[in-house]
Amino acid sequence: MSEQLEYTLFYWPEIPGRGEFVRLCFEAARVEYKEQNDVTELSKLLLNKDVAGMAAPHFAVPVLGVRHFEDAASTLKKARADTATDVKDSGKTHYISQTPAILSFLAPRLGLLGDAEKLERFERDVAVAQIQQLCATALDLNNEVHDTHHPISTSSYYEDQRTEAKARAADFRTNRLPKFLQVFEAALRDNGADPDQKQLAATRLWGSKTTVADLTAFQVVDGLLFAFPNCMQNLKQAGKFDQVFRLHDQIKDELKEYLQSERRLPYSNGVFRHYPELDDAE
Amino acid sequence: MSEQLEYTLFYWPEIPGRGEFVRLCFEAARVEYKEQNDVTELSKLLLNKDVAGMAAPHFAVPVLGVRHFEDAASTLKKARADTATDVKDSGKTHYISQTPAILSFLAPRLGLLGDAEKLERFERDVAVAQIQQLCATALDLNNEVHDTHHPISTSSYYEDQRTEAKARAADFRTNRLPKFLQVFEAALRDNGADPDQKQLAATRLWGSKTTVADLTAFQVVDGLLFAFPNCMQNLKQAGKFDQVFRLHDQIKDELKEYLQSERRLPYSNGVFRHYPELDDAE
Repeated sequence: MSEQLEYTLFYWPEIPGRGEFVRLCFEAARVEYKEQNDVTELSKLLLNKDVAGMAAPHFAVPVLGVRHFEDAASTLKKARADTATDVKDSGKTHYISQTPAILSFLAPRLGLLGDAEKLERFERDVAVAQIQQLCATALDLNNEVHDTHHPISTSSYYEDQRTEAKARAADFRTNRLPKFLQVFEAALRDNGADPDQKQLAATRLWGSKTTVADLTAFQVVDGLLFAFPNCMQNLKQAGKFDQVFRLHDQIKDELKEYLQSERRLPYSNGVFRHYPELDDAE
Repeated sequence: MSEQLEYTLFYWPEIPGRGEFVRLCFEAARVEYKEQNDVTELSKLLLNKDVAGMAAPHFAVPVLGVRHFEDAASTLKKARADTATDVKDSGKTHYISQTPAILSFLAPRLGLLGDAEKLERFERDVAVAQIQQLCATALDLNNEVHDTHHPISTSSYYEDQRTEAKARAADFRTNRLPKFLQVFEAALRDNGADPDQKQLAATRLWGSKTTVADLTAFQVVDGLLFAFPNCMQNLKQAGKFDQVFRLHDQIKDELKEYLQSERRLPYSNGVFRHYPELDDAE
Protein backbone atom coordinates (compact mmCIF):
# COMPACT_ATOMS: atom_id res chain seq x y z
CA MET A 1 0.00 0.00 0.00
CA SER A 2 1.40 3.38 -0.92
CA GLU A 3 -0.36 5.34 1.82
CA GLN A 4 1.71 7.57 4.06
CA LEU A 5 0.37 6.86 7.52
CA GLU A 6 1.59 7.66 11.00
CA TYR A 7 0.13 5.63 13.84
CA THR A 8 -0.39 6.57 17.48
CA LEU A 9 -1.77 4.15 20.05
CA PHE A 10 -3.74 5.87 22.81
CA TYR A 11 -3.88 3.62 25.86
CA TRP A 12 -3.57 3.66 29.65
CA PRO A 13 -0.03 3.70 31.02
CA GLU A 14 1.56 0.74 32.78
CA ILE A 15 -0.79 -2.11 31.82
CA PRO A 16 -0.73 -4.18 28.63
CA GLY A 17 -4.55 -4.52 28.69
CA ARG A 18 -6.47 -4.30 25.43
CA GLY A 19 -3.82 -1.98 24.03
CA GLU A 20 -1.52 -4.98 23.77
CA PHE A 21 -3.56 -6.52 20.95
CA VAL A 22 -2.85 -3.42 18.87
CA ARG A 23 0.78 -3.19 19.98
CA LEU A 24 1.46 -6.79 18.95
CA CYS A 25 0.32 -6.04 15.39
CA PHE A 26 2.87 -3.27 15.01
CA GLU A 27 5.59 -5.27 16.72
CA ALA A 28 4.99 -8.39 14.63
CA ALA A 29 4.96 -6.32 11.45
CA ARG A 30 7.94 -4.22 12.61
CA VAL A 31 6.06 -1.04 11.73
CA GLU A 32 6.78 2.13 13.67
CA TYR A 33 4.12 3.53 16.01
CA LYS A 34 3.92 6.13 18.73
CA GLU A 35 2.29 5.79 22.10
CA GLN A 36 0.21 8.33 23.93
CA ASN A 37 -0.31 7.30 27.57
CA ASP A 38 -0.97 10.71 29.09
CA VAL A 39 -4.21 10.38 31.01
CA THR A 40 -5.25 13.98 30.25
CA GLU A 41 -4.92 13.34 26.53
CA LEU A 42 -6.83 10.06 26.82
CA SER A 43 -9.61 11.79 28.73
CA LYS A 44 -10.05 14.34 25.96
CA LEU A 45 -10.61 11.52 23.50
CA LEU A 46 -12.98 9.67 25.79
CA LEU A 47 -15.00 12.76 26.61
CA ASN A 48 -14.97 13.57 22.92
CA LYS A 49 -13.68 17.04 23.59
CA ASP A 50 -11.49 19.34 21.53
CA VAL A 51 -10.40 16.63 19.16
CA ALA A 52 -10.64 17.46 15.51
CA GLY A 53 -11.32 14.61 13.12
CA MET A 54 -13.26 12.53 15.61
CA ALA A 55 -16.13 11.20 13.55
CA ALA A 56 -17.44 8.61 15.98
CA PRO A 57 -17.20 9.01 19.76
CA HIS A 58 -15.26 6.51 21.83
CA PHE A 59 -16.48 4.32 24.66
CA ALA A 60 -13.02 3.33 25.84
CA VAL A 61 -9.36 3.07 24.89
CA PRO A 62 -7.51 1.68 22.99
CA VAL A 63 -7.95 4.40 20.39
CA LEU A 64 -5.79 4.35 17.29
CA GLY A 65 -4.81 7.70 15.80
CA VAL A 66 -4.00 7.48 12.11
CA ARG A 67 -2.39 10.49 10.53
CA HIS A 68 -2.76 10.47 6.80
CA PHE A 69 -0.46 12.40 4.51
CA GLU A 70 -1.96 13.27 1.20
CA ASP A 71 1.22 13.20 -0.83
CA ALA A 72 4.82 12.13 -0.87
CA ALA A 73 7.22 10.86 1.74
CA SER A 74 8.69 14.35 2.01
CA THR A 75 5.52 15.60 3.73
CA LEU A 76 5.90 12.89 6.32
CA LYS A 77 9.54 13.73 6.83
CA LYS A 78 8.74 17.43 7.14
CA ALA A 79 5.94 16.78 9.63
CA ARG A 80 8.23 14.71 11.82
CA ALA A 81 10.76 17.52 11.95
CA ASP A 82 8.13 20.12 12.88
CA THR A 83 7.25 21.22 16.38
CA ALA A 84 4.32 19.53 18.07
CA THR A 85 1.98 22.42 17.22
CA ASP A 86 2.92 22.54 13.59
CA VAL A 87 2.63 18.80 13.22
CA LYS A 88 -1.05 19.03 14.10
CA ASP A 89 -1.68 21.04 10.98
CA SER A 90 0.07 18.83 8.48
CA GLY A 91 -1.81 15.71 7.59
CA LYS A 92 -5.18 14.80 9.05
CA THR A 93 -5.62 12.49 12.02
CA HIS A 94 -8.48 10.00 12.17
CA TYR A 95 -9.43 8.15 15.34
CA ILE A 96 -10.66 4.58 15.56
CA SER A 97 -11.57 2.78 18.76
CA GLN A 98 -12.83 -0.70 19.70
CA THR A 99 -10.10 -3.33 19.50
CA PRO A 100 -11.80 -5.44 16.79
CA ALA A 101 -12.30 -2.37 14.57
CA ILE A 102 -8.68 -1.31 15.05
CA LEU A 103 -7.41 -4.80 14.23
CA SER A 104 -9.59 -4.97 11.10
CA PHE A 105 -8.24 -1.63 9.93
CA LEU A 106 -4.61 -2.52 10.62
CA ALA A 107 -4.42 -6.14 9.47
CA PRO A 108 -4.36 -5.51 5.71
CA ARG A 109 -1.99 -2.54 6.17
CA LEU A 110 0.46 -4.51 8.29
CA GLY A 111 0.46 -7.70 6.24
CA LEU A 112 -1.36 -9.68 8.94
CA LEU A 113 -3.97 -11.43 6.83
CA GLY A 114 -1.69 -14.21 5.66
CA ASP A 115 -2.38 -15.23 2.10
CA ALA A 116 -5.96 -13.97 2.22
CA GLU A 117 -4.67 -10.82 0.53
CA LYS A 118 -3.87 -12.76 -2.60
CA LEU A 119 -7.37 -14.10 -3.10
CA GLU A 120 -10.09 -12.78 -5.38
CA ARG A 121 -12.56 -10.37 -3.83
CA PHE A 122 -15.24 -12.78 -2.62
CA GLU A 123 -12.84 -15.45 -1.36
CA ARG A 124 -10.73 -12.74 0.25
CA ASP A 125 -13.72 -11.22 2.05
CA VAL A 126 -14.73 -14.63 3.39
CA ALA A 127 -11.20 -15.33 4.61
CA VAL A 128 -10.98 -11.88 6.21
CA ALA A 129 -14.33 -12.44 7.93
CA GLN A 130 -13.12 -15.80 9.24
CA ILE A 131 -9.93 -14.22 10.57
CA GLN A 132 -12.08 -11.53 12.18
CA GLN A 133 -14.25 -14.32 13.61
CA LEU A 134 -11.24 -15.93 15.30
CA CYS A 135 -10.08 -12.54 16.63
CA ALA A 136 -13.56 -11.85 18.01
CA THR A 137 -13.57 -15.22 19.76
CA ALA A 138 -10.18 -14.50 21.37
CA LEU A 139 -11.38 -11.03 22.43
CA ASP A 140 -14.55 -12.51 23.90
CA LEU A 141 -12.35 -14.82 25.95
CA ASN A 142 -10.34 -11.79 27.04
CA ASN A 143 -13.56 -10.10 28.21
CA GLU A 144 -14.57 -13.18 30.15
CA VAL A 145 -11.18 -13.20 31.89
CA HIS A 146 -11.86 -9.61 32.97
CA ASP A 147 -15.23 -10.58 34.35
CA THR A 148 -13.74 -13.34 36.53
CA HIS A 149 -12.40 -10.63 38.85
CA HIS A 150 -15.16 -8.09 38.21
CA PRO A 151 -18.39 -10.07 37.84
CA ILE A 152 -20.64 -7.45 39.43
CA SER A 153 -19.24 -4.00 38.78
CA THR A 154 -16.33 -2.67 36.74
CA SER A 155 -16.26 0.47 38.85
CA SER A 156 -15.97 -1.31 42.22
CA TYR A 157 -12.91 -2.92 43.76
CA TYR A 158 -12.18 -6.60 43.35
CA GLU A 159 -12.22 -6.95 47.13
CA ASP A 160 -15.86 -5.87 47.17
CA GLN A 161 -16.93 -8.65 44.79
CA ARG A 162 -14.56 -11.40 45.85
CA THR A 163 -17.20 -13.98 46.72
CA GLU A 164 -18.94 -13.53 43.38
CA ALA A 165 -15.56 -13.54 41.63
CA LYS A 166 -14.75 -16.95 43.10
CA ALA A 167 -18.02 -18.35 41.77
CA ARG A 168 -17.57 -16.80 38.35
CA ALA A 169 -13.93 -17.89 38.12
CA ALA A 170 -14.87 -21.48 38.99
CA ASP A 171 -17.41 -21.50 36.16
CA PHE A 172 -14.84 -19.90 33.87
CA ARG A 173 -12.18 -22.52 34.58
CA THR A 174 -14.56 -25.46 34.32
CA ASN A 175 -16.90 -24.48 31.50
CA ARG A 176 -15.94 -21.39 29.58
CA LEU A 177 -12.17 -21.61 29.21
CA PRO A 178 -12.13 -25.17 27.81
CA LYS A 179 -14.97 -24.26 25.41
CA PHE A 180 -12.97 -21.34 24.04
CA LEU A 181 -9.67 -23.23 23.84
CA GLN A 182 -11.46 -26.01 22.03
CA VAL A 183 -12.28 -23.61 19.18
CA PHE A 184 -8.65 -22.61 18.78
CA GLU A 185 -7.47 -26.20 19.07
CA ALA A 186 -9.89 -27.22 16.31
CA ALA A 187 -8.79 -24.29 14.15
CA LEU A 188 -5.18 -25.36 14.49
CA ARG A 189 -5.75 -29.07 14.09
CA ASP A 190 -7.88 -28.86 10.99
CA ASN A 191 -6.08 -26.19 9.10
CA GLY A 192 -4.17 -28.48 6.84
CA ALA A 193 -0.95 -26.54 7.28
CA ASP A 194 2.54 -27.90 7.76
CA PRO A 195 2.34 -29.56 11.21
CA ASP A 196 5.49 -27.79 12.34
CA GLN A 197 4.30 -24.35 11.30
CA LYS A 198 0.74 -24.06 12.44
CA GLN A 199 -1.21 -20.87 12.72
CA LEU A 200 -4.86 -20.31 13.50
CA ALA A 201 -5.85 -19.00 10.14
CA ALA A 202 -3.32 -21.03 8.24
CA THR A 203 -5.61 -23.21 6.22
CA ARG A 204 -4.82 -24.28 2.73
CA LEU A 205 -6.84 -21.22 1.78
CA TRP A 206 -4.88 -18.59 3.63
CA GLY A 207 -1.34 -19.88 3.59
CA SER A 208 0.95 -20.24 6.54
CA LYS A 209 1.88 -16.72 7.59
CA THR A 210 1.14 -15.34 11.04
CA THR A 211 -2.12 -13.42 11.04
CA VAL A 212 -3.76 -11.02 13.42
CA ALA A 213 -5.82 -13.99 14.70
CA ASP A 214 -2.66 -15.80 15.78
CA LEU A 215 -1.37 -12.71 17.59
CA THR A 216 -4.69 -12.11 19.34
CA ALA A 217 -5.01 -15.72 20.47
CA PHE A 218 -1.37 -15.70 21.60
CA GLN A 219 -1.93 -12.67 23.80
CA VAL A 220 -4.97 -14.15 25.53
CA VAL A 221 -3.20 -17.47 26.17
CA ASP A 222 -0.14 -15.61 27.41
CA GLY A 223 -2.26 -13.57 29.81
CA LEU A 224 -4.06 -16.69 30.99
CA LEU A 225 -0.72 -18.33 31.81
CA PHE A 226 -0.06 -15.36 34.10
CA ALA A 227 -3.52 -15.10 35.66
CA PHE A 228 -4.38 -18.79 35.98
CA PRO A 229 -1.03 -20.60 36.13
CA ASN A 230 -2.31 -23.72 37.90
CA CYS A 231 -5.39 -24.06 35.79
CA MET A 232 -3.39 -23.62 32.58
CA GLN A 233 -0.76 -26.09 33.77
CA ASN A 234 -3.50 -28.65 34.43
CA LEU A 235 -5.00 -28.05 30.99
CA LYS A 236 -1.58 -28.41 29.40
CA GLN A 237 -0.92 -31.69 31.17
CA ALA A 238 -4.33 -33.04 30.16
CA GLY A 239 -3.06 -32.84 26.58
CA LYS A 240 -6.26 -31.64 24.95
CA PHE A 241 -4.93 -28.33 23.78
CA ASP A 242 -1.49 -29.19 22.48
CA GLN A 243 -1.85 -27.05 19.37
CA VAL A 244 -2.89 -24.01 21.39
CA PHE A 245 0.18 -24.23 23.58
CA ARG A 246 2.33 -24.86 20.54
CA LEU A 247 0.95 -21.72 18.87
CA HIS A 248 1.76 -19.80 22.03
CA ASP A 249 5.36 -21.03 21.97
CA GLN A 250 5.70 -20.28 18.29
CA ILE A 251 4.45 -16.70 18.46
CA LYS A 252 6.47 -16.15 21.62
CA ASP A 253 9.53 -17.10 19.65
CA GLU A 254 8.57 -14.91 16.69
CA LEU A 255 8.11 -11.90 19.00
CA LYS A 256 11.09 -12.71 21.19
CA GLU A 257 12.87 -9.41 20.67
CA TYR A 258 9.81 -7.37 21.57
CA LEU A 259 8.77 -9.56 24.49
CA GLN A 260 12.19 -9.17 26.05
CA SER A 261 12.25 -5.42 25.50
CA GLU A 262 11.09 -2.72 27.88
CA ARG A 263 8.21 -1.95 25.55
CA ARG A 264 6.47 -5.13 26.73
CA LEU A 265 4.68 -4.10 29.91
CA PRO A 266 4.36 -6.64 32.72
CA TYR A 267 0.95 -7.97 33.70
CA SER A 268 -0.26 -6.48 36.96
CA ASN A 269 -3.61 -4.92 37.64
CA GLY A 270 -5.30 -4.97 34.23
CA VAL A 271 -7.41 -7.59 32.48
CA PHE A 272 -5.01 -10.34 33.50
CA ARG A 273 -4.53 -10.47 37.26
CA HIS A 274 -3.23 -13.30 39.34
CA TYR A 275 -5.45 -13.90 42.35
CA PRO A 276 -4.51 -17.36 43.70
CA GLU A 277 -8.03 -17.84 45.08
CA LEU A 278 -9.45 -17.60 41.54
CA ASP A 279 -7.03 -20.17 40.13
CA ASP A 280 -7.10 -23.96 40.56
CA ALA A 281 -5.82 -25.12 43.94
CA GLU A 282 -2.26 -26.41 43.68
CA MET B 1 -21.77 -6.24 -6.69
CA SER B 2 -22.29 -8.90 -9.32
CA GLU B 3 -21.78 -11.89 -7.03
CA GLN B 4 -24.42 -14.59 -6.97
CA LEU B 5 -24.86 -15.32 -3.29
CA GLU B 6 -27.44 -17.22 -1.31
CA TYR B 7 -27.60 -16.52 2.41
CA THR B 8 -28.70 -18.79 5.26
CA LEU B 9 -28.87 -17.63 8.85
CA PHE B 10 -28.21 -20.42 11.36
CA TYR B 11 -29.67 -19.48 14.73
CA TRP B 12 -31.65 -20.87 17.66
CA PRO B 13 -35.40 -21.09 17.15
CA GLU B 14 -37.89 -18.86 18.97
CA ILE B 15 -35.64 -16.09 20.30
CA PRO B 16 -34.43 -12.99 18.43
CA GLY B 17 -31.11 -13.03 20.33
CA ARG B 18 -27.92 -12.22 18.48
CA GLY B 19 -29.40 -13.62 15.29
CA GLU B 20 -31.61 -10.54 15.13
CA PHE B 21 -28.66 -8.25 14.33
CA VAL B 22 -28.08 -10.29 11.18
CA ARG B 23 -31.78 -10.57 10.37
CA LEU B 24 -32.25 -6.81 10.55
CA CYS B 25 -29.56 -6.29 7.90
CA PHE B 26 -31.39 -8.48 5.41
CA GLU B 27 -34.77 -7.00 6.30
CA ALA B 28 -33.58 -3.40 6.04
CA ALA B 29 -31.93 -4.16 2.70
CA ARG B 30 -34.89 -6.26 1.53
CA VAL B 31 -32.54 -9.03 0.48
CA GLU B 32 -33.76 -12.60 0.55
CA TYR B 33 -32.32 -15.01 3.15
CA LYS B 34 -33.13 -18.44 4.47
CA GLU B 35 -33.24 -19.53 8.08
CA GLN B 36 -31.98 -22.75 9.58
CA ASN B 37 -33.27 -23.18 13.13
CA ASP B 38 -33.04 -26.94 13.41
CA VAL B 39 -31.08 -27.67 16.56
CA THR B 40 -29.48 -30.79 15.09
CA GLU B 41 -28.16 -28.81 12.15
CA LEU B 42 -26.89 -26.06 14.46
CA SER B 43 -25.12 -28.62 16.63
CA LYS B 44 -23.26 -30.00 13.64
CA LEU B 45 -21.91 -26.54 12.93
CA LEU B 46 -21.00 -25.89 16.55
CA LEU B 47 -19.30 -29.24 16.99
CA ASN B 48 -17.57 -28.63 13.68
CA LYS B 49 -18.70 -31.97 12.35
CA ASP B 50 -19.50 -33.12 8.85
CA VAL B 51 -19.64 -29.65 7.42
CA ALA B 52 -17.72 -29.08 4.24
CA GLY B 53 -16.29 -25.62 3.67
CA MET B 54 -15.90 -24.80 7.35
CA ALA B 55 -12.55 -23.08 7.45
CA ALA B 56 -12.72 -21.68 10.98
CA PRO B 57 -14.60 -23.44 13.80
CA HIS B 58 -17.50 -21.71 15.52
CA PHE B 59 -17.89 -20.84 19.18
CA ALA B 60 -21.58 -20.03 18.94
CA VAL B 61 -24.42 -19.11 16.62
CA PRO B 62 -25.33 -16.95 14.74
CA VAL B 63 -23.51 -18.54 11.83
CA LEU B 64 -24.03 -17.17 8.35
CA GLY B 65 -23.93 -19.61 5.47
CA VAL B 66 -22.99 -17.99 2.18
CA ARG B 67 -23.43 -20.04 -0.94
CA HIS B 68 -21.43 -18.67 -3.80
CA PHE B 69 -22.27 -19.40 -7.40
CA GLU B 70 -19.41 -19.12 -9.78
CA ASP B 71 -21.37 -18.04 -12.81
CA ALA B 72 -24.65 -16.72 -14.04
CA ALA B 73 -28.07 -16.32 -12.51
CA SER B 74 -29.17 -19.50 -14.27
CA THR B 75 -27.03 -21.59 -11.92
CA LEU B 76 -28.78 -20.02 -8.97
CA LYS B 77 -32.16 -20.66 -10.49
CA LYS B 78 -31.26 -24.25 -11.25
CA ALA B 79 -29.94 -24.84 -7.74
CA ARG B 80 -33.14 -23.53 -6.18
CA ALA B 81 -35.20 -25.95 -8.25
CA ASP B 82 -33.03 -28.91 -7.32
CA THR B 83 -33.65 -31.32 -4.49
CA ALA B 84 -31.94 -30.66 -1.19
CA THR B 85 -29.19 -33.19 -1.92
CA ASP B 86 -28.41 -31.85 -5.34
CA VAL B 87 -28.35 -28.29 -4.10
CA LYS B 88 -25.42 -29.17 -1.85
CA ASP B 89 -23.30 -29.89 -4.86
CA SER B 90 -23.93 -26.74 -6.81
CA GLY B 91 -22.15 -23.72 -5.51
CA LYS B 92 -19.90 -23.74 -2.47
CA THR B 93 -21.05 -22.74 1.00
CA HIS B 94 -18.81 -20.76 3.33
CA TYR B 95 -19.57 -20.31 7.00
CA ILE B 96 -18.92 -17.19 9.06
CA SER B 97 -19.73 -16.79 12.76
CA GLN B 98 -19.35 -14.04 15.36
CA THR B 99 -21.92 -11.28 14.93
CA PRO B 100 -19.39 -8.48 14.28
CA ALA B 101 -17.66 -10.54 11.56
CA ILE B 102 -20.98 -11.37 9.93
CA LEU B 103 -22.06 -7.71 9.97
CA SER B 104 -18.73 -6.61 8.48
CA PHE B 105 -19.09 -9.13 5.69
CA LEU B 106 -22.70 -8.24 4.93
CA ALA B 107 -22.69 -4.45 5.26
CA PRO B 108 -20.99 -3.63 1.93
CA ARG B 109 -23.01 -6.32 0.14
CA LEU B 110 -26.34 -5.07 1.48
CA GLY B 111 -25.70 -1.36 1.00
CA LEU B 112 -25.49 -0.70 4.75
CA LEU B 113 -22.38 1.47 4.85
CA GLY B 114 -24.12 4.69 3.90
CA ASP B 115 -22.00 6.88 1.68
CA ALA B 116 -18.76 5.32 2.95
CA GLU B 117 -18.87 3.16 -0.16
CA LYS B 118 -18.33 6.18 -2.38
CA LEU B 119 -15.11 7.28 -0.69
CA GLU B 120 -11.56 6.65 -1.80
CA ARG B 121 -9.84 3.62 -0.32
CA PHE B 122 -8.23 5.15 2.78
CA GLU B 123 -11.17 7.37 3.71
CA ARG B 124 -13.52 4.47 3.06
CA ASP B 125 -11.54 2.12 5.29
CA VAL B 126 -11.57 4.70 8.11
CA ALA B 127 -15.32 5.22 7.76
CA VAL B 128 -15.92 1.46 7.69
CA ALA B 129 -13.77 1.03 10.81
CA GLN B 130 -15.76 3.75 12.57
CA ILE B 131 -19.05 2.12 11.62
CA GLN B 132 -17.61 -1.18 12.91
CA GLN B 133 -16.58 0.68 16.09
CA LEU B 134 -20.16 1.82 16.69
CA CYS B 135 -21.48 -1.69 15.99
CA ALA B 136 -18.95 -3.17 18.43
CA THR B 137 -20.05 -0.70 21.10
CA ALA B 138 -23.71 -1.64 20.61
CA LEU B 139 -22.81 -5.34 20.73
CA ASP B 140 -20.80 -4.83 23.92
CA LEU B 141 -23.89 -3.24 25.44
CA ASN B 142 -25.88 -6.26 24.28
CA ASN B 143 -23.40 -8.55 26.07
CA GLU B 144 -23.67 -6.52 29.24
CA VAL B 145 -27.46 -6.83 29.13
CA HIS B 146 -27.02 -10.60 28.99
CA ASP B 147 -24.73 -10.52 32.00
CA THR B 148 -27.29 -8.63 34.10
CA HIS B 149 -29.28 -11.87 34.38
CA HIS B 150 -26.30 -14.23 34.16
CA PRO B 151 -23.45 -12.57 36.06
CA ILE B 152 -21.95 -15.79 37.42
CA SER B 153 -22.57 -18.61 34.96
CA THR B 154 -24.10 -18.82 31.51
CA SER B 155 -24.83 -22.48 32.03
CA SER B 156 -26.77 -22.07 35.30
CA TYR B 157 -30.34 -20.87 35.75
CA TYR B 158 -31.14 -17.25 36.44
CA GLU B 159 -32.84 -18.33 39.65
CA ASP B 160 -29.52 -19.68 40.94
CA GLN B 161 -27.76 -16.32 40.52
CA ARG B 162 -30.60 -13.95 41.31
CA THR B 163 -28.89 -12.13 44.17
CA GLU B 164 -25.79 -11.47 42.09
CA ALA B 165 -28.00 -10.51 39.14
CA LYS B 166 -29.70 -7.83 41.22
CA ALA B 167 -26.33 -6.33 42.14
CA ARG B 168 -25.04 -6.46 38.59
CA ALA B 169 -28.26 -5.03 37.16
CA ALA B 170 -28.15 -2.13 39.63
CA ASP B 171 -24.63 -1.29 38.49
CA PHE B 172 -25.71 -1.69 34.87
CA ARG B 173 -28.65 0.71 35.21
CA THR B 174 -26.69 3.31 37.16
CA ASN B 175 -23.25 3.23 35.57
CA ARG B 176 -22.95 1.18 32.43
CA LEU B 177 -26.15 1.85 30.51
CA PRO B 178 -25.88 5.68 30.66
CA LYS B 179 -22.20 5.46 29.67
CA PHE B 180 -23.09 3.45 26.57
CA LEU B 181 -26.09 5.56 25.61
CA GLN B 182 -23.93 8.67 25.97
CA VAL B 183 -21.71 7.41 23.15
CA PHE B 184 -24.65 6.96 20.82
CA GLU B 185 -26.17 10.28 21.84
CA ALA B 186 -22.87 12.03 21.07
CA ALA B 187 -22.59 10.22 17.74
CA LEU B 188 -26.06 11.41 16.78
CA ARG B 189 -25.71 14.96 18.08
CA ASP B 190 -22.41 15.72 16.45
CA ASN B 191 -22.88 14.11 13.12
CA GLY B 192 -23.81 17.25 11.25
CA ALA B 193 -26.66 15.53 9.47
CA ASP B 194 -30.12 16.92 8.80
CA PRO B 195 -31.65 17.13 12.31
CA ASP B 196 -34.80 15.36 11.13
CA GLN B 197 -32.93 12.47 9.55
CA LYS B 198 -30.25 11.46 11.97
CA GLN B 199 -28.35 8.23 11.89
CA LEU B 200 -25.41 7.11 13.93
CA ALA B 201 -22.91 7.06 11.18
CA ALA B 202 -24.51 9.86 9.24
CA THR B 203 -21.79 12.46 9.44
CA ARG B 204 -21.01 14.80 6.63
CA LEU B 205 -18.50 12.16 5.67
CA TRP B 206 -20.81 9.23 5.31
CA GLY B 207 -24.07 10.75 4.14
CA SER B 208 -27.46 10.17 5.66
CA LYS B 209 -28.42 6.62 4.79
CA THR B 210 -29.18 4.00 7.41
CA THR B 211 -26.11 1.93 8.18
CA VAL B 212 -25.50 -1.34 9.96
CA ALA B 213 -24.53 0.75 13.03
CA ASP B 214 -27.99 2.33 13.15
CA LEU B 215 -29.65 -1.08 12.90
CA THR B 216 -27.44 -2.59 15.59
CA ALA B 217 -28.01 0.29 18.01
CA PHE B 218 -31.75 0.19 17.27
CA GLN B 219 -31.97 -3.48 18.18
CA VAL B 220 -30.19 -3.02 21.51
CA VAL B 221 -32.35 -0.02 22.46
CA ASP B 222 -35.44 -1.93 21.40
CA GLY B 223 -34.46 -4.89 23.56
CA LEU B 224 -33.70 -2.60 26.49
CA LEU B 225 -37.19 -1.09 26.24
CA PHE B 226 -38.54 -4.63 26.71
CA ALA B 227 -36.13 -5.75 29.44
CA PHE B 228 -35.87 -2.53 31.45
CA PRO B 229 -39.08 -0.60 30.73
CA ASN B 230 -39.03 1.50 33.88
CA CYS B 231 -35.37 2.32 33.69
CA MET B 232 -35.67 3.28 30.03
CA GLN B 233 -38.76 5.37 30.72
CA ASN B 234 -36.86 7.22 33.43
CA LEU B 235 -33.93 7.82 31.11
CA LYS B 236 -36.28 9.05 28.40
CA GLN B 237 -37.96 11.50 30.75
CA ALA B 238 -34.60 12.79 31.97
CA GLY B 239 -34.10 14.05 28.41
CA LYS B 240 -30.41 13.26 28.10
CA PHE B 241 -30.76 10.73 25.31
CA ASP B 242 -33.31 12.34 23.02
CA GLN B 243 -31.38 11.47 19.86
CA VAL B 244 -31.07 7.83 20.86
CA PHE B 245 -34.82 7.49 21.33
CA ARG B 246 -35.41 9.40 18.12
CA LEU B 247 -33.13 7.00 16.23
CA HIS B 248 -35.10 4.12 17.71
CA ASP B 249 -38.40 5.62 16.50
CA GLN B 250 -36.97 6.32 13.07
CA ILE B 251 -35.61 2.81 12.46
CA LYS B 252 -38.78 1.32 13.92
CA ASP B 253 -40.68 3.22 11.29
CA GLU B 254 -38.29 2.20 8.51
CA LEU B 255 -38.63 -1.48 9.48
CA LYS B 256 -42.37 -1.27 10.21
CA GLU B 257 -43.40 -3.96 7.77
CA TYR B 258 -40.88 -6.46 9.12
CA LEU B 259 -41.48 -5.61 12.76
CA GLN B 260 -45.20 -6.25 12.35
CA SER B 261 -44.65 -9.50 10.48
CA GLU B 262 -44.45 -12.98 11.93
CA ARG B 263 -40.78 -13.09 11.06
CA ARG B 264 -40.05 -10.74 13.98
CA LEU B 265 -39.81 -13.04 16.99
CA PRO B 266 -41.02 -11.76 20.36
CA TYR B 267 -38.55 -11.21 23.19
CA SER B 268 -38.81 -13.90 25.84
CA ASN B 269 -36.00 -15.90 27.31
CA GLY B 270 -32.97 -14.75 25.33
CA VAL B 271 -30.55 -11.88 25.85
CA PHE B 272 -33.40 -9.49 26.61
CA ARG B 273 -35.55 -10.73 29.47
CA HIS B 274 -37.90 -8.76 31.62
CA TYR B 275 -37.35 -9.51 35.29
CA PRO B 276 -39.10 -6.74 37.25
CA GLU B 277 -36.64 -7.11 40.12
CA LEU B 278 -33.75 -6.17 37.81
CA ASP B 279 -35.50 -3.05 36.53
CA ASP B 280 -35.98 0.30 38.33
CA ALA B 281 -38.73 0.20 40.92
CA GLU B 282 -41.90 1.78 39.55
